Amino acid sequence: MRQPKYGFGLALVHELSSRPATEISKIYATARGDSTPLSELATASAGRVPVVQLDVTDELSIRNAAAEVEKQLSGKGLDILINNAGVCQDVGDGVKLMDHLAESFTINVPGVHYTTQAVLPLLQRGSLKKVANLITSLASITLARASRDVPAPAYKISKFALHALTVQYALDHEKDDFAFVAIAPGWMKTDLGSGDIADLTPEQGAKASLEILFRPNGEINGQFLKVLVPGWENATGRNVYDGTMVPW
Amino acid sequence: MRQPKYGFGLALVHELSSRPATEISKIYATARGDSTPLSELATASAGRVPVVQLDVTDELSIRNAAAEVEKQLSGKGLDILINNAGVCQDVGDGVKLMDHLAESFTINVPGVHYTTQAVLPLLQRGSLKKVANLITSLASITLARASRDVPAPAYKISKFALHALTVQYALDHEKDDFAFVAIAPGWMKTDLGSGDIADLTPEQGAKASLEILFRPNGEINGQFLKVLVPGWENATGRNVYDGTMVPW
Repeated sequence: MRQPKYGFGLALVHELSSRPATEISKIYATARGDSTPLSELATASAGRVPVVQLDVTDELSIRNAAAEVEKQLSGKGLDILINNAGVCQDVGDGVKLMDHLAESFTINVPGVHYTTQAVLPLLQRGSLKKVANLITSLASITLARASRDVPAPAYKISKFALHALTVQYALDHEKDDFAFVAIAPGWMKTDLGSGDIADLTPEQGAKASLEILFRPNGEINGQFLKVLVPGWENATGRNVYDGTMVPW
Repeated sequence: MRQPKYGFGLALVHELSSRPATEISKIYATARGDSTPLSELATASAGRVPVVQLDVTDELSIRNAAAEVEKQLSGKGLDILINNAGVCQDVGDGVKLMDHLAESFTINVPGVHYTTQAVLPLLQRGSLKKVANLITSLASITLARASRDVPAPAYKISKFALHALTVQYALDHEKDDFAFVAIAPGWMKTDLGSGDIADLTPEQGAKASLEILFRPNGEINGQFLKVLVPGWENATGRNVYDGTMVPW
Protein backbone atom coordinates (compact mmCIF):
# COMPACT_ATOMS: atom_id res chain seq x y z
CA MET A 1 0.00 0.00 0.00
CA ARG A 2 1.36 3.38 -0.94
CA GLN A 3 1.42 6.04 1.74
CA PRO A 4 1.17 9.43 0.05
CA LYS A 5 3.50 11.94 1.71
CA TYR A 6 1.84 15.05 0.32
CA GLY A 7 -1.44 13.99 -1.07
CA PHE A 8 -4.70 15.32 -2.27
CA GLY A 9 -6.24 15.46 1.24
CA LEU A 10 -3.66 17.93 2.45
CA ALA A 11 -4.13 20.00 -0.72
CA LEU A 12 -7.87 20.16 0.01
CA VAL A 13 -7.22 21.39 3.56
CA HIS A 14 -4.74 23.99 2.20
CA GLU A 15 -7.23 25.20 -0.37
CA LEU A 16 -10.11 25.38 2.12
CA SER A 17 -8.00 27.24 4.67
CA SER A 18 -6.89 29.76 2.04
CA ARG A 19 -10.49 30.93 1.79
CA PRO A 20 -11.74 33.66 4.18
CA ALA A 21 -12.56 32.51 7.72
CA THR A 22 -15.84 34.40 7.37
CA GLU A 23 -16.76 31.93 4.62
CA ILE A 24 -15.28 28.75 6.13
CA SER A 25 -14.85 28.99 9.89
CA LYS A 26 -13.55 25.51 10.74
CA ILE A 27 -11.97 22.70 8.76
CA TYR A 28 -11.91 19.34 10.55
CA ALA A 29 -9.00 17.53 8.94
CA THR A 30 -8.76 13.80 9.55
CA ALA A 31 -5.72 11.55 9.41
CA ARG A 32 -5.23 7.94 10.45
CA GLY A 33 -1.78 8.59 11.88
CA ASP A 34 0.66 11.42 12.52
CA SER A 35 1.18 13.72 9.58
CA THR A 36 3.87 16.37 9.99
CA PRO A 37 2.65 18.68 7.22
CA LEU A 38 -0.91 18.50 8.54
CA SER A 39 0.24 19.19 12.12
CA GLU A 40 2.18 22.21 10.90
CA LEU A 41 -0.82 23.50 9.00
CA ALA A 42 -3.05 22.94 12.04
CA THR A 43 -0.64 24.79 14.34
CA ALA A 44 -0.35 27.72 11.94
CA SER A 45 -4.16 27.90 11.67
CA ALA A 46 -4.52 28.90 15.35
CA GLY A 47 -7.46 26.57 15.96
CA ARG A 48 -9.21 26.89 12.60
CA VAL A 49 -8.00 23.45 11.44
CA PRO A 50 -8.55 20.88 14.22
CA VAL A 51 -7.03 17.49 13.40
CA VAL A 52 -9.18 14.45 14.21
CA GLN A 53 -7.82 10.90 14.23
CA LEU A 54 -9.76 8.70 11.80
CA ASP A 55 -9.09 5.27 10.32
CA VAL A 56 -11.89 4.60 7.82
CA THR A 57 -11.30 0.83 8.02
CA ASP A 58 -12.29 0.85 11.72
CA GLU A 59 -15.94 1.49 12.55
CA LEU A 60 -15.13 2.40 16.15
CA SER A 61 -12.60 4.97 14.96
CA ILE A 62 -15.25 6.42 12.63
CA ARG A 63 -17.79 6.71 15.44
CA ASN A 64 -15.21 8.27 17.76
CA ALA A 65 -14.19 10.81 15.12
CA ALA A 66 -17.82 11.78 14.47
CA ALA A 67 -18.41 12.14 18.22
CA GLU A 68 -15.31 14.32 18.57
CA VAL A 69 -16.42 16.62 15.74
CA GLU A 70 -19.93 16.78 17.20
CA LYS A 71 -18.50 17.77 20.60
CA GLN A 72 -16.35 20.50 19.07
CA LEU A 73 -19.32 21.83 17.09
CA SER A 74 -21.29 22.34 20.36
CA GLY A 75 -24.69 21.90 18.77
CA LYS A 76 -23.89 23.56 15.46
CA GLY A 77 -24.08 21.59 12.21
CA LEU A 78 -21.44 20.51 9.72
CA ASP A 79 -21.78 21.89 6.19
CA ILE A 80 -19.59 19.66 4.05
CA LEU A 81 -18.13 16.15 4.16
CA ILE A 82 -15.32 15.26 1.77
CA ASN A 83 -14.58 11.54 1.56
CA ASN A 84 -11.08 11.36 0.14
CA ALA A 85 -9.35 8.49 2.00
CA GLY A 86 -8.58 5.74 -0.46
CA VAL A 87 -6.04 3.24 -1.60
CA CYS A 88 -4.68 2.30 -5.01
CA GLN A 89 -2.83 -0.98 -5.29
CA ASP A 90 -1.07 -2.16 -8.42
CA VAL A 91 -0.96 -5.72 -9.66
CA GLY A 92 1.39 -7.21 -12.21
CA ASP A 93 0.14 -9.24 -15.18
CA GLY A 94 -3.56 -8.65 -15.09
CA VAL A 95 -6.67 -8.98 -13.00
CA LYS A 96 -6.26 -12.74 -12.46
CA LEU A 97 -3.38 -12.09 -10.02
CA MET A 98 -5.27 -9.49 -7.99
CA ASP A 99 -5.18 -10.55 -4.33
CA HIS A 100 -6.23 -7.34 -2.57
CA LEU A 101 -9.74 -6.75 -3.89
CA ALA A 102 -11.44 -7.08 -0.51
CA GLU A 103 -8.90 -4.78 1.14
CA SER A 104 -9.23 -2.09 -1.53
CA PHE A 105 -12.98 -2.35 -1.32
CA THR A 106 -13.07 -2.06 2.49
CA ILE A 107 -11.09 1.16 2.42
CA ASN A 108 -12.64 2.72 -0.68
CA VAL A 109 -16.32 1.89 -0.23
CA PRO A 110 -17.53 0.82 3.26
CA GLY A 111 -15.04 3.39 4.65
CA VAL A 112 -16.99 6.10 2.86
CA HIS A 113 -20.35 4.58 3.73
CA TYR A 114 -19.75 4.30 7.48
CA THR A 115 -18.18 7.76 7.65
CA THR A 116 -21.16 9.26 5.83
CA GLN A 117 -23.59 7.36 8.05
CA ALA A 118 -21.86 8.64 11.20
CA VAL A 119 -21.68 12.26 10.04
CA LEU A 120 -25.13 12.50 8.43
CA PRO A 121 -26.91 13.82 11.58
CA LEU A 122 -24.36 16.66 11.76
CA LEU A 123 -24.80 17.44 8.05
CA GLN A 124 -28.58 17.52 8.50
CA ARG A 125 -28.06 20.30 11.07
CA GLY A 126 -25.74 22.16 8.66
CA SER A 127 -26.77 24.70 6.04
CA LEU A 128 -24.92 23.49 2.89
CA LYS A 129 -25.57 19.71 3.02
CA LYS A 130 -22.80 18.71 0.64
CA VAL A 131 -20.96 15.38 0.43
CA ALA A 132 -18.13 14.85 -2.07
CA ASN A 133 -16.86 11.34 -2.78
CA LEU A 134 -13.52 11.37 -4.55
CA ILE A 135 -13.41 8.87 -7.36
CA THR A 136 -11.39 8.61 -10.59
CA SER A 137 -12.03 8.48 -14.33
CA LEU A 138 -10.48 5.00 -14.12
CA ALA A 139 -13.82 3.96 -12.59
CA SER A 140 -15.48 4.17 -15.99
CA ILE A 141 -16.55 1.19 -18.08
CA THR A 142 -16.60 3.42 -21.16
CA LEU A 143 -12.92 4.29 -20.60
CA ALA A 144 -11.91 0.80 -19.41
CA ARG A 145 -10.08 -0.06 -22.63
CA ALA A 146 -8.31 3.32 -22.69
CA SER A 147 -7.23 2.69 -19.07
CA ARG A 148 -5.78 -0.79 -19.59
CA ASP A 149 -2.27 0.54 -19.10
CA VAL A 150 -3.07 1.40 -15.46
CA PRO A 151 -2.53 -1.93 -13.63
CA ALA A 152 -4.87 -1.24 -10.72
CA PRO A 153 -8.04 -3.32 -11.24
CA ALA A 154 -9.06 -3.32 -7.57
CA TYR A 155 -8.86 0.47 -7.53
CA LYS A 156 -11.01 0.72 -10.65
CA ILE A 157 -13.56 -1.82 -9.37
CA SER A 158 -13.87 -0.36 -5.88
CA LYS A 159 -14.14 3.22 -7.13
CA PHE A 160 -16.79 2.04 -9.59
CA ALA A 161 -18.72 0.68 -6.60
CA LEU A 162 -18.23 4.02 -4.83
CA HIS A 163 -19.96 5.72 -7.75
CA ALA A 164 -22.93 3.39 -7.19
CA LEU A 165 -22.92 4.14 -3.44
CA THR A 166 -22.91 7.88 -4.18
CA VAL A 167 -25.94 7.53 -6.43
CA GLN A 168 -27.83 5.54 -3.77
CA TYR A 169 -27.24 8.31 -1.22
CA ALA A 170 -28.10 10.99 -3.78
CA LEU A 171 -31.49 9.43 -4.51
CA ASP A 172 -32.31 8.88 -0.83
CA HIS A 173 -31.47 12.43 0.28
CA GLU A 174 -32.44 14.64 -2.64
CA LYS A 175 -35.73 15.40 -0.88
CA ASP A 176 -33.68 17.09 1.90
CA ASP A 177 -31.75 19.22 -0.64
CA PHE A 178 -28.51 17.33 -0.13
CA ALA A 179 -25.83 17.04 -2.78
CA PHE A 180 -23.95 13.76 -2.96
CA VAL A 181 -21.49 14.17 -5.79
CA ALA A 182 -18.79 11.88 -7.18
CA ILE A 183 -15.76 13.87 -8.31
CA ALA A 184 -12.88 12.70 -10.50
CA PRO A 185 -10.16 15.15 -9.41
CA GLY A 186 -7.76 14.20 -12.19
CA TRP A 187 -4.42 12.44 -12.34
CA MET A 188 -2.33 14.30 -9.81
CA LYS A 189 1.36 14.52 -8.94
CA THR A 190 1.03 12.64 -5.64
CA ASP A 191 2.47 9.34 -4.46
CA LEU A 192 -0.84 7.67 -5.32
CA GLY A 193 -0.71 9.25 -8.77
CA SER A 194 2.83 7.99 -9.52
CA GLY A 195 4.46 11.38 -8.92
CA ASP A 196 5.69 13.90 -11.43
CA ILE A 197 4.56 12.14 -14.62
CA ALA A 198 0.93 12.96 -13.71
CA ASP A 199 -1.10 15.80 -15.19
CA LEU A 200 -2.11 18.14 -12.38
CA THR A 201 -0.69 19.40 -9.12
CA PRO A 202 -2.73 18.45 -6.03
CA GLU A 203 -3.48 22.18 -5.69
CA GLN A 204 -5.04 22.29 -9.16
CA GLY A 205 -7.10 19.17 -8.40
CA ALA A 206 -8.24 20.51 -5.02
CA LYS A 207 -9.22 23.94 -6.33
CA ALA A 208 -11.16 22.47 -9.25
CA SER A 209 -12.86 19.82 -7.07
CA LEU A 210 -14.08 22.48 -4.64
CA GLU A 211 -15.42 24.53 -7.56
CA ILE A 212 -17.65 21.56 -8.38
CA LEU A 213 -18.68 21.07 -4.76
CA PHE A 214 -19.70 24.72 -4.27
CA ARG A 215 -22.10 24.64 -7.22
CA PRO A 216 -25.83 24.53 -6.30
CA ASN A 217 -26.83 21.19 -4.81
CA GLY A 218 -29.58 20.53 -7.34
CA GLU A 219 -27.07 20.79 -10.20
CA ILE A 220 -24.56 18.29 -8.84
CA ASN A 221 -26.54 15.79 -6.75
CA GLY A 222 -25.96 12.26 -8.04
CA GLN A 223 -23.52 13.40 -10.73
CA PHE A 224 -20.07 11.95 -11.49
CA LEU A 225 -18.05 14.93 -12.70
CA LYS A 226 -14.61 15.65 -14.06
CA VAL A 227 -12.83 18.74 -12.83
CA LEU A 228 -12.47 21.75 -15.11
CA VAL A 229 -8.86 22.86 -15.36
CA PRO A 230 -7.90 25.65 -17.78
CA GLY A 231 -5.54 24.33 -20.47
CA TRP A 232 -6.77 20.71 -20.12
CA GLU A 233 -10.21 21.03 -21.73
CA ASN A 234 -9.04 19.66 -25.07
CA ALA A 235 -6.82 16.80 -23.96
CA THR A 236 -7.83 13.26 -24.94
CA GLY A 237 -9.18 10.12 -23.25
CA ARG A 238 -9.31 10.03 -19.48
CA ASN A 239 -7.00 13.06 -19.22
CA VAL A 240 -9.60 15.60 -20.31
CA TYR A 241 -10.44 18.01 -17.51
CA ASP A 242 -13.36 19.88 -19.00
CA GLY A 243 -15.88 19.75 -16.15
CA THR A 244 -18.26 17.36 -17.92
CA MET A 245 -19.72 14.07 -16.71
CA VAL A 246 -17.39 11.09 -16.55
CA PRO A 247 -18.78 8.61 -19.09
CA TRP A 248 -19.94 5.64 -17.02
CA MET B 1 -29.47 -13.79 4.37
CA ARG B 2 -32.06 -15.49 2.24
CA GLN B 3 -31.48 -19.12 1.34
CA PRO B 4 -33.24 -19.86 -1.94
CA LYS B 5 -34.86 -23.31 -1.87
CA TYR B 6 -35.25 -23.65 -5.62
CA GLY B 7 -33.12 -21.02 -7.16
CA PHE B 8 -31.59 -20.00 -10.40
CA GLY B 9 -28.51 -22.19 -9.95
CA LEU B 10 -30.59 -25.36 -9.91
CA ALA B 11 -32.54 -24.13 -12.94
CA LEU B 12 -29.25 -23.68 -14.81
CA VAL B 13 -28.19 -27.24 -13.97
CA HIS B 14 -31.60 -28.54 -15.06
CA GLU B 15 -31.42 -26.66 -18.34
CA LEU B 16 -27.84 -27.77 -19.06
CA SER B 17 -28.63 -31.39 -18.26
CA SER B 18 -31.67 -31.31 -20.56
CA ARG B 19 -29.31 -30.79 -23.50
CA PRO B 20 -27.83 -33.85 -25.24
CA ALA B 21 -24.92 -35.52 -23.48
CA THR B 22 -23.08 -35.47 -26.79
CA GLU B 23 -23.16 -31.67 -26.56
CA ILE B 24 -22.57 -31.27 -22.79
CA SER B 25 -20.91 -34.30 -21.27
CA LYS B 26 -20.47 -33.19 -17.65
CA ILE B 27 -21.97 -30.48 -15.48
CA TYR B 28 -20.07 -29.79 -12.27
CA ALA B 29 -22.70 -28.33 -9.97
CA THR B 30 -21.48 -26.60 -6.84
CA ALA B 31 -23.31 -26.00 -3.58
CA ARG B 32 -22.07 -24.74 -0.23
CA GLY B 33 -24.19 -27.19 1.75
CA ASP B 34 -26.56 -30.09 1.22
CA SER B 35 -29.26 -29.49 -1.34
CA THR B 36 -31.90 -32.19 -1.68
CA PRO B 37 -33.14 -31.20 -5.15
CA LEU B 38 -29.57 -31.00 -6.43
CA SER B 39 -28.71 -34.40 -4.90
CA GLU B 40 -31.77 -35.92 -6.56
CA LEU B 41 -30.81 -34.41 -9.90
CA ALA B 42 -27.23 -35.65 -9.49
CA THR B 43 -28.38 -39.18 -8.64
CA ALA B 44 -30.78 -39.28 -11.59
CA SER B 45 -27.99 -38.08 -13.92
CA ALA B 46 -25.98 -41.30 -13.42
CA GLY B 47 -22.68 -39.46 -13.06
CA ARG B 48 -23.24 -36.69 -15.57
CA VAL B 49 -23.84 -34.08 -12.82
CA PRO B 50 -21.13 -34.39 -10.14
CA VAL B 51 -21.79 -32.17 -7.11
CA VAL B 52 -18.79 -30.31 -5.73
CA GLN B 53 -18.82 -28.56 -2.34
CA LEU B 54 -17.99 -24.86 -2.74
CA ASP B 55 -18.33 -21.89 -0.42
CA VAL B 56 -17.32 -18.81 -2.42
CA THR B 57 -16.58 -16.84 0.76
CA ASP B 58 -13.79 -19.29 1.66
CA GLU B 59 -10.65 -19.22 -0.49
CA LEU B 60 -9.58 -22.67 0.70
CA SER B 61 -12.96 -24.10 -0.29
CA ILE B 62 -12.57 -22.47 -3.72
CA ARG B 63 -9.12 -23.99 -4.22
CA ASN B 64 -10.32 -27.41 -3.05
CA ALA B 65 -13.31 -27.31 -5.41
CA ALA B 66 -11.10 -26.35 -8.36
CA ALA B 67 -8.68 -29.17 -7.47
CA GLU B 68 -11.55 -31.66 -7.24
CA VAL B 69 -12.89 -30.65 -10.67
CA GLU B 70 -9.38 -30.80 -12.14
CA LYS B 71 -8.93 -34.32 -10.75
CA GLN B 72 -12.23 -35.49 -12.18
CA LEU B 73 -11.39 -33.97 -15.58
CA SER B 74 -8.19 -36.13 -15.74
CA GLY B 75 -6.27 -33.70 -17.93
CA LYS B 76 -9.21 -32.49 -20.00
CA GLY B 77 -10.27 -28.85 -19.94
CA LEU B 78 -13.39 -27.12 -18.67
CA ASP B 79 -15.45 -25.25 -21.26
CA ILE B 80 -17.69 -22.95 -19.25
CA LEU B 81 -17.77 -21.34 -15.82
CA ILE B 82 -21.01 -19.84 -14.56
CA ASN B 83 -20.65 -17.62 -11.48
CA ASN B 84 -24.12 -17.48 -10.00
CA ALA B 85 -23.62 -17.62 -6.21
CA GLY B 86 -24.78 -14.36 -4.71
CA VAL B 87 -26.68 -12.73 -1.92
CA CYS B 88 -29.36 -10.03 -1.83
CA GLN B 89 -30.00 -8.35 1.51
CA ASP B 90 -32.76 -5.82 2.08
CA VAL B 91 -32.48 -2.77 4.28
CA GLY B 92 -35.29 -0.65 5.68
CA ASP B 93 -35.37 3.14 5.30
CA GLY B 94 -32.57 3.78 2.88
CA VAL B 95 -28.89 3.34 2.25
CA LYS B 96 -27.83 5.10 5.45
CA LEU B 97 -28.94 2.08 7.52
CA MET B 98 -27.10 -0.45 5.35
CA ASP B 99 -24.87 -2.53 7.63
CA HIS B 100 -23.99 -5.50 5.40
CA LEU B 101 -22.14 -3.86 2.51
CA ALA B 102 -18.85 -5.65 3.18
CA GLU B 103 -20.62 -9.03 3.52
CA SER B 104 -22.61 -8.59 0.30
CA PHE B 105 -19.47 -7.51 -1.49
CA THR B 106 -17.39 -10.46 -0.24
CA ILE B 107 -19.91 -12.96 -1.57
CA ASN B 108 -20.85 -11.17 -4.78
CA VAL B 109 -17.46 -9.92 -6.01
CA PRO B 110 -14.30 -11.51 -4.51
CA GLY B 111 -16.23 -14.81 -4.49
CA VAL B 112 -16.46 -14.58 -8.28
CA HIS B 113 -12.91 -13.31 -8.65
CA TYR B 114 -11.26 -16.08 -6.64
CA THR B 115 -13.39 -18.77 -8.26
CA THR B 116 -12.49 -17.47 -11.72
CA GLN B 117 -8.82 -17.24 -10.78
CA ALA B 118 -8.82 -20.86 -9.53
CA VAL B 119 -10.63 -22.25 -12.57
CA LEU B 120 -8.88 -20.21 -15.27
CA PRO B 121 -6.15 -22.80 -15.97
CA LEU B 122 -8.88 -25.42 -16.62
CA LEU B 123 -10.77 -23.03 -18.89
CA GLN B 124 -7.59 -22.31 -20.83
CA ARG B 125 -7.40 -26.05 -21.58
CA GLY B 126 -11.08 -26.08 -22.65
CA SER B 127 -12.44 -25.40 -26.11
CA LEU B 128 -15.25 -22.89 -25.44
CA LYS B 129 -13.58 -20.49 -22.96
CA LYS B 130 -16.78 -18.93 -21.64
CA VAL B 131 -17.38 -17.27 -18.26
CA ALA B 132 -20.80 -15.92 -17.31
CA ASN B 133 -21.17 -13.64 -14.30
CA LEU B 134 -24.77 -13.31 -13.20
CA ILE B 135 -25.68 -9.74 -12.38
CA THR B 136 -28.97 -7.79 -12.37
CA SER B 137 -30.46 -4.76 -14.09
CA LEU B 138 -30.58 -3.24 -10.61
CA ALA B 139 -26.81 -2.77 -11.07
CA SER B 140 -27.43 0.11 -13.46
CA ILE B 141 -26.87 3.79 -12.69
CA THR B 142 -29.19 4.70 -15.55
CA LEU B 143 -31.99 2.68 -13.97
CA ALA B 144 -31.14 3.63 -10.36
CA ARG B 145 -34.07 6.00 -10.00
CA ALA B 146 -36.48 3.47 -11.53
CA SER B 147 -35.16 0.87 -9.06
CA ARG B 148 -35.57 2.96 -5.90
CA ASP B 149 -38.43 0.76 -4.76
CA VAL B 150 -36.08 -2.22 -4.41
CA PRO B 151 -34.54 -1.70 -0.94
CA ALA B 152 -31.30 -3.59 -1.58
CA PRO B 153 -28.51 -1.02 -1.99
CA ALA B 154 -25.68 -3.43 -1.09
CA TYR B 155 -26.92 -5.84 -3.76
CA LYS B 156 -26.99 -3.07 -6.36
CA ILE B 157 -23.58 -1.71 -5.38
CA SER B 158 -21.84 -5.09 -5.22
CA LYS B 159 -23.34 -6.29 -8.51
CA PHE B 160 -22.28 -2.98 -10.04
CA ALA B 161 -18.73 -3.80 -8.93
CA LEU B 162 -19.11 -7.28 -10.43
CA HIS B 163 -19.83 -5.66 -13.79
CA ALA B 164 -16.53 -3.78 -13.48
CA LEU B 165 -14.71 -7.01 -12.55
CA THR B 166 -16.20 -8.74 -15.59
CA VAL B 167 -14.95 -5.99 -17.88
CA GLN B 168 -11.43 -6.18 -16.40
CA TYR B 169 -11.31 -9.92 -17.13
CA ALA B 170 -12.81 -9.41 -20.58
CA LEU B 171 -10.10 -6.94 -21.57
CA ASP B 172 -7.27 -9.08 -20.17
CA HIS B 173 -8.35 -12.30 -21.88
CA GLU B 174 -9.83 -11.23 -25.20
CA LYS B 175 -6.50 -12.05 -26.87
CA ASP B 176 -7.05 -15.71 -25.91
CA ASP B 177 -10.59 -15.69 -27.42
CA PHE B 178 -12.30 -15.85 -24.04
CA ALA B 179 -15.78 -14.50 -23.41
CA PHE B 180 -16.41 -12.92 -20.02
CA VAL B 181 -20.01 -11.78 -20.10
CA ALA B 182 -22.23 -10.13 -17.50
CA ILE B 183 -25.79 -11.41 -17.74
CA ALA B 184 -28.93 -9.91 -16.17
CA PRO B 185 -31.17 -13.01 -16.06
CA GLY B 186 -34.31 -11.06 -15.15
CA TRP B 187 -36.50 -10.87 -12.09
CA MET B 188 -37.28 -14.48 -11.32
CA LYS B 189 -39.76 -16.34 -9.15
CA THR B 190 -37.15 -17.54 -6.63
CA ASP B 191 -36.68 -16.83 -2.93
CA LEU B 192 -34.08 -14.20 -3.83
CA GLY B 193 -36.52 -12.66 -6.28
CA SER B 194 -39.37 -12.38 -3.71
CA GLY B 195 -41.30 -15.33 -5.09
CA ASP B 196 -44.36 -15.37 -7.29
CA ILE B 197 -44.71 -11.62 -7.85
CA ALA B 198 -41.61 -11.74 -10.07
CA ASP B 199 -41.64 -11.78 -13.88
CA LEU B 200 -39.97 -14.97 -15.04
CA THR B 201 -39.66 -18.56 -13.93
CA PRO B 202 -36.11 -19.67 -13.11
CA GLU B 203 -36.40 -21.97 -16.15
CA GLN B 204 -37.11 -19.03 -18.46
CA GLY B 205 -34.18 -17.10 -16.97
CA ALA B 206 -31.84 -20.09 -17.25
CA LYS B 207 -32.75 -20.90 -20.84
CA ALA B 208 -32.41 -17.28 -21.96
CA SER B 209 -29.12 -16.79 -20.06
CA LEU B 210 -27.61 -19.86 -21.74
CA GLU B 211 -28.73 -18.54 -25.14
CA ILE B 212 -26.57 -15.50 -24.49
CA LEU B 213 -23.65 -17.56 -23.26
CA PHE B 214 -23.63 -19.84 -26.32
CA ARG B 215 -23.34 -16.93 -28.75
CA PRO B 216 -19.89 -16.45 -30.36
CA ASN B 217 -17.31 -15.23 -27.83
CA GLY B 218 -16.35 -12.16 -29.85
CA GLU B 219 -19.97 -10.94 -29.79
CA ILE B 220 -20.46 -11.15 -26.04
CA ASN B 221 -17.04 -10.59 -24.46
CA GLY B 222 -17.18 -7.66 -22.04
CA GLN B 223 -20.90 -7.08 -22.60
CA PHE B 224 -23.60 -6.64 -19.94
CA LEU B 225 -26.71 -8.14 -21.51
CA LYS B 226 -30.38 -8.58 -20.70
CA VAL B 227 -31.98 -11.90 -21.53
CA LEU B 228 -34.37 -12.14 -24.46
CA VAL B 229 -37.69 -13.68 -23.40
CA PRO B 230 -40.57 -13.86 -25.89
CA GLY B 231 -43.49 -11.75 -24.69
CA TRP B 232 -41.31 -9.47 -22.56
CA GLU B 233 -39.57 -7.46 -25.31
CA ASN B 234 -41.93 -4.49 -24.97
CA ALA B 235 -42.24 -4.23 -21.19
CA THR B 236 -40.95 -1.06 -19.52
CA GLY B 237 -38.07 0.00 -17.26
CA ARG B 238 -35.89 -2.69 -15.77
CA ASN B 239 -38.42 -5.42 -16.64
CA VAL B 240 -37.71 -5.38 -20.39
CA TYR B 241 -36.22 -8.68 -21.52
CA ASP B 242 -35.28 -7.87 -25.08
CA GLY B 243 -31.71 -9.16 -25.26
CA THR B 244 -30.11 -5.72 -25.49
CA MET B 245 -27.36 -4.19 -23.37
CA VAL B 246 -28.25 -3.16 -19.82
CA PRO B 247 -27.82 0.64 -19.76
CA TRP B 248 -24.91 1.26 -17.38
